[in-house]
This record gives sequence, structure tokens and C-alpha cells, in this order.
Amino acid sequence: MAKFLTKRDENYARWYNDLVIKTEMAENSAVRGCMVIRPYGYSIWEKMQAELDRMFKATGHVNAYFPLFIPKSFFSREAKHVEGFAKECAIVTHYRLKNDPSGGGVTVDPTAKLEEELIIRPTSETIIWNSYRNWIQSYRDLPILINQWANVVRWEMRTRLFLRTAEFLWQEGHTAHATRKEAEEETVRMINVYADFAENYMALPVIKGYKTESERFAGAIDTYAIEALMQDGKALQAGTSHFLGQNFAKAFNVQFTDRSGKLDYVWATSWGVSTRLIGALIMAHADNHGLVLPPRLAPLQVVIIPIYRDNEQLEMISQTAMKIKNDLENAGISSKYDDRDTNKPGWKFADYELKGVPVRIAIGPRDIENGTLEIARRDTLQKEVVGNDGVVERISALLEDIQKNIYNKALEFRTKNTFYVEDWKDFISVLDNSGGFIMAHWDGTPETEEKIKEETKATIRCIPFDSPEEEGKCIYSGKPSKRRVLFARSY
Amino acid sequence: MAKFLTKRDENYARWYNDLVIKTEMAENSAVRGCMVIRPYGYSIWEKMQAELDRMFKATGHVNAYFPLFIPKSFFSREAKHVEGFAKECAIVTHYRLKNDPSGGGVTVDPTAKLEEELIIRPTSETIIWNSYRNWIQSYRDLPILINQWANVVRWEMRTRLFLRTAEFLWQEGHTAHATRKEAEEETVRMINVYADFAENYMALPVIKGYKTESERFAGAIDTYAIEALMQDGKALQAGTSHFLGQNFAKAFNVQFTDRSGKLDYVWATSWGVSTRLIGALIMAHADNHGLVLPPRLAPLQVVIIPIYRDNEQLEMISQTAMKIKNDLENAGISSKYDDRDTNKPGWKFADYELKGVPVRIAIGPRDIENGTLEIARRDTLQKEVVGNDGVVERISALLEDIQKNIYNKALEFRTKNTFYVEDWKDFISVLDNSGGFIMAHWDGTPETEEKIKEETKATIRCIPFDSPEEEGKCIYSGKPSKRRVLFARSY
Repeated sequence: MAKFLTKRDENYARWYNDLVIKTEMAENSAVRGCMVIRPYGYSIWEKMQAELDRMFKATGHVNAYFPLFIPKSFFSREAKHVEGFAKECAIVTHYRLKNDPSGGGVTVDPTAKLEEELIIRPTSETIIWNSYRNWIQSYRDLPILINQWANVVRWEMRTRLFLRTAEFLWQEGHTAHATRKEAEEETVRMINVYADFAENYMALPVIKGYKTESERFAGAIDTYAIEALMQDGKALQAGTSHFLGQNFAKAFNVQFTDRSGKLDYVWATSWGVSTRLIGALIMAHADNHGLVLPPRLAPLQVVIIPIYRDNEQLEMISQTAMKIKNDLENAGISSKYDDRDTNKPGWKFADYELKGVPVRIAIGPRDIENGTLEIARRDTLQKEVVGNDGVVERISALLEDIQKNIYNKALEFRTKNTFYVEDWKDFISVLDNSGGFIMAHWDGTPETEEKIKEETKATIRCIPFDSPEEEGKCIYSGKPSKRRVLFARSY
Repeated sequence: MAKFLTKRDENYARWYNDLVIKTEMAENSAVRGCMVIRPYGYSIWEKMQAELDRMFKATGHVNAYFPLFIPKSFFSREAKHVEGFAKECAIVTHYRLKNDPSGGGVTVDPTAKLEEELIIRPTSETIIWNSYRNWIQSYRDLPILINQWANVVRWEMRTRLFLRTAEFLWQEGHTAHATRKEAEEETVRMINVYADFAENYMALPVIKGYKTESERFAGAIDTYAIEALMQDGKALQAGTSHFLGQNFAKAFNVQFTDRSGKLDYVWATSWGVSTRLIGALIMAHADNHGLVLPPRLAPLQVVIIPIYRDNEQLEMISQTAMKIKNDLENAGISSKYDDRDTNKPGWKFADYELKGVPVRIAIGPRDIENGTLEIARRDTLQKEVVGNDGVVERISALLEDIQKNIYNKALEFRTKNTFYVEDWKDFISVLDNSGGFIMAHWDGTPETEEKIKEETKATIRCIPFDSPEEEGKCIYSGKPSKRRVLFARSY
């Protein structure tokens, strides 16, 4: 059992926070709401970035970088956008400090006041579309398929490591198209990329669907999302892709000449995922022993630990271990041989379990005699003694199996915790007991949606793309409904 | 000749700016002093990042991420540090906008004033050492070898794309050590990594040396720098590595128990390079036709252009071209077949020359008949018709040759423009005529250094590591000197 106190079932929120701190993934900083992403947490983000970046490039996108600062006036141009972000902005008003005349330290120099305040970007549609205006004249300049890796700031009052922080890291795609159809296709393409990443790399099953009007991105015509279920029965939005219509083109006057010579406004999308995904990864798979990392995102896939009494034993073991390590590395499997003499094997076992390393190999003197190894998998904690021939093939297959197993376990959990509910009493009962995903009928009005939220804190996570047409009655109003939507309490 | 007007010899500054704009590497944004790094410029930064990141990891470093914001009070803790950065800080004072009561837009909500102002990081020593305090108790926790890729803001009044902007992208290494010796070794190690990168990837010869006291990083005991010579005879500081002593450990009270059980302050280094390197890359190698990219940093290494009159010809050419493209890609050489019918070959030639693509292959109908290709290299603009067998080996060798040639050309330029000067008259004469690096004696006093700067705008770029001991007289004061230092006007 790992050396942190809180068990998952006792206090999920504390278990999560303990886990993030004890694994040294992240911690709170001296600045309210801002976290420090420590090397272990950041190395997982680097793995995520590498895969996502590859996927973005494979779908034709390129990276660029736009300013951190957004002039205040840009914000007001798209009415819903400003409404959505104005209340949580960090605002730069001055550009110089001076020595404090009353002594001790520095103070803001009042003579260095900006003419127009600058907002730290909470998202970059406005500053980007202001640039696109100069880049786009004709349909020949389209599409523009740009992604940006950046930090953004939203002044959240209640923060939690990775899940909700004032500053976070993310990527934001911003594309410009000649036709509505192309932009809509792009919006779908990118939500599919996100779903592919979540399922095949994070081992996280997700539901793809439309957001309701009240849950849409501020300034979007349509928002698609992927929603995942965490182990405490709450939903987590893991990525969004927005069809922005011509809203930002109109706000920033971005027009182009189409093939027929007619002037029209440009069509837009934007889409993003953030360091929040690290929170999802933890909350979906981790257990009382610590993290459980899917092999495809694990910074370290295999650790090899020697078990020995004296130097002679260690030397023999090291020979075998280093050969295995080299063979694994040559096969593209990241591995480490931990022969530090400062810690006992048992301590190391617990530490790598805590860190979620998918496979542990232990080698002792008897293994050397017998030509064997002990292989332990993190996901099930099962151990097995095997012959030391064909190690690479075995480990390679095992990593694949772990990747699948973690996914299947999460899928099974979701299936067990998805409830088809027909009436209000059952709806409340599910929320108050197990939590989970609730597929239920809704009358389609924002009023009902709002009332359900007020009374239960459950929201419509999405209208799943694959939710079939079906006659039913709204669980709240009893009015007719054509399809079920996905309700849950959420992060 | 490329389609931009200014020639390098006519107006170097305008040539540079034209080049950055016309190649679509970057442009000025709506926010004063902040640039937009466009996809082509960013793709070069990505190549630089990939190589540097690999080099940092190979020398034992890991990445992490610290907050964008620094509490104002942190700044005052290290006296010289605050003095160096206080006058160019962007300051966050509020965290909310509200609807403007006088109508139209939004205004800063005066009730949402921060208790303590936050500075946008101009560099992260203070916020990082505040974290290190909690991470370090004993020598067992050391060394800490962390790097961060981030944006920083320094409110510069006169800005130039890539070279000096209010916001820029960079990496900053921040390491913590148990002994002075280890920290000093790290400082040297990293300036060597930067020099290696500059010379072997950027094809940019650099001089490694110590900064004088007045040119040191604010808060450093010692600053090492690499200095490069641009084609207009001005120097550019391409990277710095700082030995910070125990200054930040003392400012943030970071103590550790050493092996003997004694409490001591931790030793520190920091080191960084920025998107400024893209400016250096341009100014060191580009010509009147556009960029000249060293193959190891070129986002696209080879472009293949078909020359044809009808579709039948194009089809034949495309077969050969696609085979070559695939062979090149398989050999790890990035290549593109540009068969767009919207532009003539001559236009394409000029465009890829402008963008600095190292190698161009042209294939026409006669080449297909004869089994030949035309290969043009960007660095010398030489063309050659060759047989189409062994293309991959040939191109591979050519890329190596171009890489070397660009370096040698820059080295030759620097050798020709490095002057060993013995007296003040010659010093002035060099500065006013050719510019360049000046190796001259200096009496070692900040007063003389300052006067030379006032009178000529030339500064001591560094005291080269390899500058031999030599008796001499200061060019300004005539006082005795033991070694020459490197003077130049600089960016």
C-alpha cells in the first residue's frame, strides 16, 4: 500500500489531491489558483502533447504563436464572447515598477499606466481573428488550419490542481474556411481526433455529443464535446470543438472573395484540450496504491529492480538487467534500471506503484540461477515468474494488454454506471446514491435544463451523436421528447 | 531575385524586416511590441526546440512549468534582480471586467483589485526558488536540474521582430546544487551546449566568454555568453548561462543539510535562449534572395518542382518525383513535391529561395527522357544536372555539405571582420567603417567600459574564454591590461 493516507472510497477529493502531491505531479504555488507542474506531471503532458501534435499535423494543421495580451476593446466586439469571459480576466494596467518612496521594495509606477488595458488571454479567438483579417483576401488564402500551444488565464475562484486552475496550459486550434460545410466538417474532424486520443492513448472511453445552447462556448454556434466518467460518478469534459459560424469574422470584419467573385465572411472553428486531461487520467484510472498510467502515455514504461544481499549478487543481476534494459530501449520501450542502494526493494516497489509505472521487473539471485524474472503489472497488481527468454516480445505484448485492460476496465465501469432513467424520482435517486451517467429525456427547453441544474447540480453534459430517436417524456416537465440526453454532475 | 525590394547592402534593417514579413515568419500584432509568430517562423522554432530539448535531456535535465505570475514582493527580495527588471514589467492589478456603465464595451471593475499586484514573469528565478525552498531539505534532494519552455514579458520600448519584443518565447533552465563547484560546472556545461547548438545546428560560429560586471544578468555572480557576428558587423548575444552563487537561495531562504550535517544555502545557475535565435539565424545567413536555412534546422529540406507543358508530361514527371520524395522521406530527409498548377515554376523557384529551402530538384520532360534531374542548392545558388540514380545518397551528402558551407561562410566572414586593434583611433575607425568584432585591451574598470559605450555605442561583448594572457595597454585609458576583450556594437 502506498504511503498516502486517504483511500479513494473514503474521501475521493482528498485522495485525488494527495495523489497529485505525493506523486510530485503538481502543487499549488504562491500565486492564488496557479499551480506548479512538477517534472513528473510535466513529462505526462509532454507525452500527451507529442501524440496530439502528431495527430493535428496528420490532419493538415500547423502551429503558430499569437500574443499573450488582448486589447480590452477586442473583447467587446463579439457580444457573447465578452459576456462569457469578462468576469474572470487578469488585467494588465501598468508597465513599470518603481522604488517605493516609503521605503522597502517596489511599487507600481502610476505614471506608467497603459492607455488601453490588456487582458491576459483566456482564449485567443479575438486576437487571432484580428490577424486573420490581414491574411485573408480570397478563397485561395483558405483554409487556414492553425494550432497554438499556450498558457491561458481564467480567474477561477475555486481551483483544484489540473482540473481547474487560474493559469493552465492548453492547445487551441483556430481554423478559417471558405464554406459553412468545410467549417462544420472540421469541427467534427477535431472532436473525432480528441475522442481517438482519449480512447486510444488515455484509455478513456468518451461520449461524443452536442452541447446544449446554455453550455456552448461563448461565441459559438455549436459546441461538440467529449465527456468521460470519473470513478466517483462525476463527468469530466475532456475536449471541445466549436463551430463558430461567421461570428468572429463579422466581429473582426474578415471577408474574402469566393470563387464566384462575391464577398463573404469567413467561417470559423476553434477547438482545445488542456492540462485538465492529466486530472482526467488520474481520476479515471488511479487506485489506492497510486497512479495507473496507460502504457502509451507513461513517461517510464518498465522499471527493473534488483534484489540482492551483496555486491557479488548485484553485479550478476546488473548484467542481466542492463541487457534487458538495452533490448527494451532498442524496441522503443522506455525503461529504467533502478540499482540505487539508498532504498530497499520494497520501498522502490511502492514508489513505482505510486507513480503508475505499467510494468515492474524484479530480479534476484535465484532468478539468475534459474534464468527467470518476476514481472508485475501495475493495472492488476498481478505478479508472475517467467523464463528470461523472449523478454522483449513478452513485455511488448504485456504493455498492449495493459493498455487494453485499462480501457476495458474504464468502459466496464462506465457501462455499469450509466443509467437509463424514466422519471424524476429515479433521477434523484441515481444522483444521490451512485452518481454516474444518466440517459434521460428532456423537453429541449433552457428553462427545464436550468431548473434541473438548480435542484440537483446535474447538467446536460451533451446530446450524444449516437443517441437514437425515441419517443419519451421529459423527466422534469413531462413534456414530449424525441431523444435522450446525457445528464451528470460534473467537474 | 526575390520579390522584396530592399537589398541587404542598401538598408540592412529594412532588408531584415522585409525578409521576416515576406517569408511570413512573423509580423507585428495589434498589441504594442508583441509579435505574431506565423507558421513558417514557428516551424523553425519547433526545430530549434526539438534539438535543444534533446540536448538538455541528454545532459540530465527535465522539464517543468511554473506560474506566469510573480507576486510583486518576490521581486524585491534580490536587490539587483529587481533593479534589473522593475522598469520593464507588465503588471496585473485587477481580475475582472464589467459592463461599462456609460455604455459600449467593458471596463475594469474597480472592486476587483488584487491585494498584491502580480508581475508577468520577465524571468522566473524568484517564483522558482520560492518553490525550491519546499523541495530541498538535504543534499539527497540535489541537484535539481529543471528547464522550462515558456513565454516571458519585458516591456521594451523599441522593438524589432524576433530580436527584441515585449513578449517572447524562450527556455529557462534553473538548477540547484550542493556545492559551488557543481554549480560552476553546470554553468560551463550549458554555455557549451548552447555553443554546440549554435555552431552545429544554426551553422553560426560563436565566441564563448565571460560578461563584465556591468553586462551580467541581474542577480548573477558570473554570466557566460555566446556572441555571434551578424552580416552588418554588429554582434548578437545568442545565449547566456549564469552562475547565481547563493544569491537566490539567500533571498528565498533555501537551505539544505550537507553530507557532514551542516546547514548551508543552495548554489544556483540559470540559462536561457529565446526566439531571438531566429533573428540571428536570418541575419547571419540570409541574402538578397531571401532566407538561407542550415539543413539541420530547415522545416523543409528538399522541394521537388515539375516543369511541364501538358498533363501527360506531368504524369510522367510525377511518377519519378513521388518515388524520389518517398525515398528521401524514408531516409529521414523532409521533402515536398509541389505540383500546384496555380503557379509557374519560376514563381515557385523564387518562393522557395525566399523561404531558404536548402535544396531544390527540378524535373522536366527532357530529364525523364535522359534519366536526369536538376539539383540547385540554396546557399550558393549553383545548379547541376545529374543522373537520377543514387539520388538519396547524393542529396544526403549535399545537405551535409550545405550545412558545412553555411558555417564556413559565416566563419570566414567573422574572421575577415575581427580586428585586433591597438589604439583608440583605429577602434573608432573600425566601428565607423566596417563594424565587426574588435579584440582590444581594456583596463578592467567599469568606468572605462562606460565611457567607451557612451562615446561609441560599442560594448564589451565578452571576455573570451580562450583570450590568451598578453601584456597590453587599454585602448581608452592607456592603463595596463593582461588580456584582450571582445568589443562590438550589438543588437
